[in-house]
Amino acid sequence: MLPALNKIVFRPEAKSIEIPKDTLLSEAIAQAGVRFNLPCGGQGRCGRCKVVVEQGEIKRRSSSRISPVELEQGYALACQTTPLSDLQVFIPPQEAIVRKLPSEKAAAEIPTLPVECDWQSNPIVRKFFVTIEPPSLSDNTTDFERLKRELARQHNIKDLVANLPVLRKLARTLRESERSGDPCGRAGWQVTAILEMGTWVDEDAPPRLIDLRPGDHSGRTLACAVDIGTTSNVVCLVDLVSGRFIDSTLAYNAQISCGEDVISRILYARKEGGLQHLQRLVVQTINELLHELAERNQVDPGEIYAMTVAGNTTMIHLFLALDPSFIRLEPYIPTVTYPLPVRASELGLHICPEATVDCLPGVGAYVGGDITAGVLSSSMFKTDKLTLFIDVGTNGEIVLGNADWLISCACSAGPAFEGAGVRSGMRATAGAIEEVWINADTYEPTYRVIGDVPPRGICGSGMISLLAEMFIIGVADKSGRLNRALHTPRIRIGEHGPEYVVAWAKETQNQKEDIVLTEVDISNLIRAKGAIYAGFSVLTTSVGIDLADVEEVLIGGAFGKYIDIEKAIQIGLLPDMPWERFKYLGNTSVLGAFTALLCRDMRREVVEIAKKMTYLELSADNRFMEQFTSALFLPHTDTTAFPSVMRLLNKSRGS
Amino acid sequence: MLPALNKIVFRPEAKSIEIPKDTLLSEAIAQAGVRFNLPCGGQGRCGRCKVVVEQGEIKRRSSSRISPVELEQGYALACQTTPLSDLQVFIPPQEAIVRKLPSEKAAAEIPTLPVECDWQSNPIVRKFFVTIEPPSLSDNTTDFERLKRELARQHNIKDLVANLPVLRKLARTLRESERSGDPCGRAGWQVTAILEMGTWVDEDAPPRLIDLRPGDHSGRTLACAVDIGTTSNVVCLVDLVSGRFIDSTLAYNAQISCGEDVISRILYARKEGGLQHLQRLVVQTINELLHELAERNQVDPGEIYAMTVAGNTTMIHLFLALDPSFIRLEPYIPTVTYPLPVRASELGLHICPEATVDCLPGVGAYVGGDITAGVLSSSMFKTDKLTLFIDVGTNGEIVLGNADWLISCACSAGPAFEGAGVRSGMRATAGAIEEVWINADTYEPTYRVIGDVPPRGICGSGMISLLAEMFIIGVADKSGRLNRALHTPRIRIGEHGPEYVVAWAKETQNQKEDIVLTEVDISNLIRAKGAIYAGFSVLTTSVGIDLADVEEVLIGGAFGKYIDIEKAIQIGLLPDMPWERFKYLGNTSVLGAFTALLCRDMRREVVEIAKKMTYLELSADNRFMEQFTSALFLPHTDTTAFPSVMRLLNKSRGS
Repeated sequence: MLPALNKIVFRPEAKSIEIPKDTLLSEAIAQAGVRFNLPCGGQGRCGRCKVVVEQGEIKRRSSSRISPVELEQGYALACQTTPLSDLQVFIPPQEAIVRKLPSEKAAAEIPTLPVECDWQSNPIVRKFFVTIEPPSLSDNTTDFERLKRELARQHNIKDLVANLPVLRKLARTLRESERSGDPCGRAGWQVTAILEMGTWVDEDAPPRLIDLRPGDHSGRTLACAVDIGTTSNVVCLVDLVSGRFIDSTLAYNAQISCGEDVISRILYARKEGGLQHLQRLVVQTINELLHELAERNQVDPGEIYAMTVAGNTTMIHLFLALDPSFIRLEPYIPTVTYPLPVRASELGLHICPEATVDCLPGVGAYVGGDITAGVLSSSMFKTDKLTLFIDVGTNGEIVLGNADWLISCACSAGPAFEGAGVRSGMRATAGAIEEVWINADTYEPTYRVIGDVPPRGICGSGMISLLAEMFIIGVADKSGRLNRALHTPRIRIGEHGPEYVVAWAKETQNQKEDIVLTEVDISNLIRAKGAIYAGFSVLTTSVGIDLADVEEVLIGGAFGKYIDIEKAIQIGLLPDMPWERFKYLGNTSVLGAFTALLCRDMRREVVEIAKKMTYLELSADNRFMEQFTSALFLPHTDTTAFPSVMRLLNKSRGS
Repeated sequence: MLPALNKIVFRPEAKSIEIPKDTLLSEAIAQAGVRFNLPCGGQGRCGRCKVVVEQGEIKRRSSSRISPVELEQGYALACQTTPLSDLQVFIPPQEAIVRKLPSEKAAAEIPTLPVECDWQSNPIVRKFFVTIEPPSLSDNTTDFERLKRELARQHNIKDLVANLPVLRKLARTLRESERSGDPCGRAGWQVTAILEMGTWVDEDAPPRLIDLRPGDHSGRTLACAVDIGTTSNVVCLVDLVSGRFIDSTLAYNAQISCGEDVISRILYARKEGGLQHLQRLVVQTINELLHELAERNQVDPGEIYAMTVAGNTTMIHLFLALDPSFIRLEPYIPTVTYPLPVRASELGLHICPEATVDCLPGVGAYVGGDITAGVLSSSMFKTDKLTLFIDVGTNGEIVLGNADWLISCACSAGPAFEGAGVRSGMRATAGAIEEVWINADTYEPTYRVIGDVPPRGICGSGMISLLAEMFIIGVADKSGRLNRALHTPRIRIGEHGPEYVVAWAKETQNQKEDIVLTEVDISNLIRAKGAIYAGFSVLTTSVGIDLADVEEVLIGGAFGKYIDIEKAIQIGLLPDMPWERFKYLGNTSVLGAFTALLCRDMRREVVEIAKKMTYLELSADNRFMEQFTSALFLPHTDTTAFPSVMRLLNKSRGS
């Protein structure tokens, strides 16, 4: 007797196939030759194989990751569903595997300011096009006075000042500009004066001539927002006239060669010439990014007329070559948390030499301008909701509060989540494994790579995903040790001890080395997530607040936009709360820098945020060490704090 | 028959001698073995051999240079007087030939400000001694905020700002300062904050921390006033607390190697790297002078916290490395005449890197801050008298006016009067011949050397003196040609054409080369004096004023204090006016810089002077060329303008 077949018609591709009952829809789809992703390999865990059953009856083995509303609409997981009758099934568009590279994504994803503000009325730098009558014996005013006179007449600019580098080229530029005049006659000198309109700290300071160019360039005023992370640096190119975000790019901070976290950098800075070397390295990284942006957008980097920088307190000290020694030693005193504006030429930055570089104010030794920038761009400073803001980078900084009050702390996570300090770690760029699913029976991984290319390594979100899978599947135990009793060539003793092979050498880009996660890597990841979770615990405890009271959790930081919250909860990096309370914000540091660069009101707001924020020094807090120790397990010693993870674990291991 | 002898008793040395009548007193003095100077060799012209005949009768051949009052008191010229009876003669103390070197002289001669003003109430830089409680976990304000807090509490300083170089050493300096605390206990951090109290252009600018030193250094605040001449540079060390002039020194501007006058410097600046080279040279000269002053006064040059500079417009452009090209070309446009304050580190000056360097404002391309400084220090801007101010340096600048109006012009004199561009020329320092008398019969010179050492060369005042003598005695004619018909080995054809030997090689310091004045040198000197006199003529003519109307002639400039007015009139450098109308002011440029450095009111006054002063461009004035041509004779084509010189000449040549 032939088995009863059910005819399955697939939409929108209008393919159909007949299959026996008990055949999974996912298999039917595969047989029908429709392109379809099964990231978790058909374990019913990832929820990515959702289809809509439009007609017919089905049997669902599992409906995890399908909301009640979706259930009513006919959604089903293809890997967990069999037909009970003929079916008409709609296959939603599959997520494109080719993902845009981060820089392009960022450009696409920061179209406008994250906070509503009046950025247009009073930009920090303005350009003025002026036509100037050349001098004569009867009108032999000096070049500078002549320019001043016309700026006053034509644009009502008073009390103009200028520094040497611009004055040094004034005479030539004015006379060169005559050639750009009206070819029909002597049109006079025609130049664009680029003026800094008061300083960030003193709006009433006289306008300062920071550059002068022959011809009319007043249509656009380039500036850049920079995030100096301990591990990664981001540079965004913006236009102060349109308020438009033009482009951005990122790279590892070249200082990594001198130490992976802020403490090792501070120790390096104490060496003879060490501080100067670190300063040059970060400036070199930023300059390379500036040149990349300039080339890609066909602009002259010398036309960038303002820079706003967000970074942690140590990074800002190193960027400015300020002595960071006492940030490391009790009572942890920085030289400044409200750095005064400096000129680009003082730092060796390849933008307009006279451009002001403005480092956003921070709160203390371990809560810097990157966090105040984050609070700014998250709009947390305006909300009534009790909000938790987490910036996960090399350090994990946490801010709790709302429009009325803010309290913060910092915990050293290390660079593992940024792909550094981990054997096969890399930044989230082309070739990085960013998501991993492990088959619970075979322990074989399925991974997704940024850029649709063979893998080169694993980025932070990939590691969180991988570690969570390893833990849930049982490849790693709660203390992070690999289960070597499992029958799989993926678990082995490598050169650096026990390790799990995510991709064999032959699958990789260079075909030379397996991509692995070692027990040492796991230990680093657990320490990193433990530090952050411990900070989180201490902060809420210190203000007498319970986790449940937090109405919104905002996730910033370099890879905040890419981490999988579910996975992050599974490893105990984030607290086990309903998913809808979490909100991804992406790189809030650079977003805040962008906001403060564009709008003076917002720049002032950063100062208010910094002033308002209480800083809890964890190094001086015994509770932190206790909480940290408790958090050095997957997901945590206190399993009652992670009910959803325990449920999943029981189900997964029980299966 | 024995000749009748007269006994001459000399006081105060109580020597006596018997001499025949008709023996000159000067011979009697020599025979008696009393030390006595006869600078003009006994021609009755220099007036330096004055004695007082206390008892007895005498016969005077000449009493030139003896006033009627002196005549009544018995004064007589020893070289022009014979006894008619026994005499008692008082020989006044002889002028010490050992003259202090210029730097020491200057120190002695500028004890206080040349202008009355309230310099004490509001100095540009102030020092504040503060004691600061070191930080703790419970008071972990940043270093900079902590310093600000105490400066506000203890000294009412608000809104302090600071630049990177000071912030970079802040952490270390504060902690080092703890060791300078009270040894009996933890006295806290004790430091001296050095603050610039607003800027020269904006008094209300926030106070700026320019240095920080451990311990208490508030007793004295060093600063320096600088005169950048085309040929000579002067640096004066002053104390802003006491208003005291401490010391000064001078040297040739090292730029001389690239050209002797402003035009040749401007041409040099157009070469590849030329401007930067010139900038480094003048800074090098100033740095050397700073180090000399620092060593001599046992201070650290880094403790000099402000610098005010006066110089002509080209010199200021070269000092700041501003493009001077268009100063040379019609319509003669500088980049600035009101230079904005710059920081010492921007120029490479070896004072406190954050110290402000303030270049005083000028009027135009050829009347610079040295002249406004001169008008300031001369008090000309406050007088009702019609005053003529002349600054004789490489350029000759002339200002005419009073408290109500000022008009100025400039004429390129060349560096001859500063000892440069003349074969045996040198600066007025040890070894320079500064005064010469020539015997009308033998044509043998008598000279006076600065420092009582063998001569090395001739300085400006020496050249004026020498040229005047040569002309009056007839060694040179009115066009400056040497009279080779005279029987003297002093006049000869040298390597460089006809020349007059002032000192034979054996008399000189290096014993190698004769000190000479060549016809070429004379021609240079005549052109120099001619340019100045022509400027003077054009200026008075242009405002319809007659020479006789000028009530006071103020002589400034590098050697203004040392030139002999009589000699200067004889060669036609100065107009032939009653001597009492002339007033020597010395280096008015550096005096003005000193004044403006010490007192903000006076600094503002310089701006008012610069604004008020009309500038007459001689390059565009045909009258100048005419006048210059007429002035290329000794003393001038128009001999009626020099009646006193003509009288002397007739007398001298007639004798």
